Amino acid sequence: MSISIELLEEHRMFDGWQQRYRHFSSSLQCSMTFSIYLPPPRDDSPPPVVYWLSGLTCNDENFTTKAGAQRIAAELGIVLVMPDTSPRGDDVANDEGYDLGQGAGFYLNATQSPWAAHFRMYDYLIDELPLLVQEHFNISDRQSIMGHSMGGHGALMLALRNPQRFRSASAFAPIVNPCQVPWGRKAFTAYLGADESQWLQYDSCHLLSSLPSEQETFPILVDQGDSDQFLADQLQPAKLAELARQRGWPLQLRVQPGYDHSYYTIASFVEDHLRFHAARLF
Amino acid sequence: MSISIELLEEHRMFDGWQQRYRHFSSSLQCSMTFSIYLPPPRDDSPPPVVYWLSGLTCNDENFTTKAGAQRIAAELGIVLVMPDTSPRGDDVANDEGYDLGQGAGFYLNATQSPWAAHFRMYDYLIDELPLLVQEHFNISDRQSIMGHSMGGHGALMLALRNPQRFRSASAFAPIVNPCQVPWGRKAFTAYLGADESQWLQYDSCHLLSSLPSEQETFPILVDQGDSDQFLADQLQPAKLAELARQRGWPLQLRVQPGYDHSYYTIASFVEDHLRFHAARLF
Repeated sequence: MSISIELLEEHRMFDGWQQRYRHFSSSLQCSMTFSIYLPPPRDDSPPPVVYWLSGLTCNDENFTTKAGAQRIAAELGIVLVMPDTSPRGDDVANDEGYDLGQGAGFYLNATQSPWAAHFRMYDYLIDELPLLVQEHFNISDRQSIMGHSMGGHGALMLALRNPQRFRSASAFAPIVNPCQVPWGRKAFTAYLGADESQWLQYDSCHLLSSLPSEQETFPILVDQGDSDQFLADQLQPAKLAELARQRGWPLQLRVQPGYDHSYYTIASFVEDHLRFHAARLF
Repeated sequence: MSISIELLEEHRMFDGWQQRYRHFSSSLQCSMTFSIYLPPPRDDSPPPVVYWLSGLTCNDENFTTKAGAQRIAAELGIVLVMPDTSPRGDDVANDEGYDLGQGAGFYLNATQSPWAAHFRMYDYLIDELPLLVQEHFNISDRQSIMGHSMGGHGALMLALRNPQRFRSASAFAPIVNPCQVPWGRKAFTAYLGADESQWLQYDSCHLLSSLPSEQETFPILVDQGDSDQFLADQLQPAKLAELARQRGWPLQLRVQPGYDHSYYTIASFVEDHLRFHAARLF
C-alpha cells in the first residue's frame, strides 16, 4: 500500500531542504499538509526523526518559519516533521472559538458528533503519518517528539502512551493536565463527551501516574516561561514534575524567568531541546 | 526635542528583549512602528547597532520572527533595529500593486504626487529614526546596515551615500541597479518622475561608480541564491560586484547554490552577516 504525497514547496536551508507536502489522510478523511526538514546527508546511516506538535491556532508552518530549529537539526543530522494541528477543510466540522475545531485537534480521537468523522489526530500521528514518512523518506526508526502548549500536551501524551516508540519527549509550556484546565475541559467535553473517565487516556498527569512501575522510562524535558500568561490557569507543568518526582521518572522542568508563551521563547531554547533528543537518538 | 515612543509588545528572547514600538514620524507624517532587539548587557560599554531593511510587502516583523538573528545578536552584543518598509495608514497614498505604495517605499524621498506627502523613507532612516533610537536606548554610535531585496537596495544605497555613518553593509539578494530593472523603474517613475537623472542618487551601481577615488571604503557582503526567481530580471548583484572589482572596493559576492529569495535563505546565512558586521563594529 503506497500513499502518494504532493510536494507543495521546497526551500534550500542550512544545506538541507525545507519541504511542504499535501496528502490524503485515511485517518482524518481529508487532505492534510505537513512540513519536513531534511538535513544535509552526513553518512550512509539514515537520520532519526523528531516530531514537532504545534499549539492552538497553529498549522505546520509556525514552527517551520519561527523557531530556528533547522540550523541545529542540520548540524545534528535530525529530520524534523511538523504535522498540522487538526483535520482541515470545508467538509470538516469547526467552531467559532480558537480553542475548538480546526486548528485545535488536541491530538486525540474524537467520539462525539460532529467531530468523530474527522478528528482522529491520535491515529494520524501514531499510525498513519509515521508510516507515510517512513515510506517516502530515508529515515531511521529512531524517533523523539516535542511540542508547544496544546502540542506539548500532544507530545507528552503520545510518548507516555507509546513509550516503545519515542526515545525522548520534550515540551514548551505544555498543557499537562487537560482534564483539569479550561482549554482541556472544553475540548474534551466536545470531542469525547461528558464521561470524564474517557478523558484520562489523553491526560499526561494521569498517564504518568498510571504507568506500571516496571515501565522502562524515557527522559522528558519541559521549559516553562514564568511570564507565560497561561501558566496559572492552563498549564501548571509543576503538577507533572511533582508526579514524575514521586515515581522517579526522569523529567526536568526548567522555569525560564521573564519568558512568555510565544515563539520567541521556543526559539531561545529549541537548541537545548534538540541536543537533549540527539543524546538519545544517536 | 524629545519624541515619545509607545511600547506595543515585548518578549524575552535569548536573555535579551525583543520589543516593538510605535511613534509619530515627522519625516513621514504618520504613525510608524519599528522593532528592536536588545541583547543581554555585556559590560558598561553601550552596544553597536545593525539596521535591517526588509523587502517588498514586509514590515518590521518579518525579519524579527523569521530570520533567527537574535541568537547571534545576543552572543555578539549587537542591537538590531528593524524599521517598517514605508509610511502606513489610511491617509497615506497606496497602490494596488505589491511593488508600489505601502510596503514598497524603496527607502527614498518621493517628489511626485500623490507620494511626496509621506514617502520620505530616506530622511526617516538617515535622520529621524537613528536619533530616536539614540535618544531612547543606550547604544553606541557604531552602526552597520543590512537588508533583503528592496531592503538590500536600501542598505547598500544608504551606506554608499553615507559612508561616514556605517562601518559595513551587507545584503541578501539586493536590487543593486534599480534604474535598470522593472521593480526599480516602476517605483522610481512613480516616486521620482520621468527624469531618470533624478533616479541615480538611489542606484547603488551608480553610487559606487561615482564615489571619489579617495573615498574611504567600508566592506560589503552580498549573498545571492542561484535559485532565486528574481535573480535574472530584478537583482543581478554581479553588476555591483564587477563595479566594485574595477575600483578596488572591498565587496564579496557569495553565490549560494540552490538557495532562493525566501527567509529560509536569510536564516541560513544571517549569522555570517552579523559576524561580518561585528568584525567592524567592535
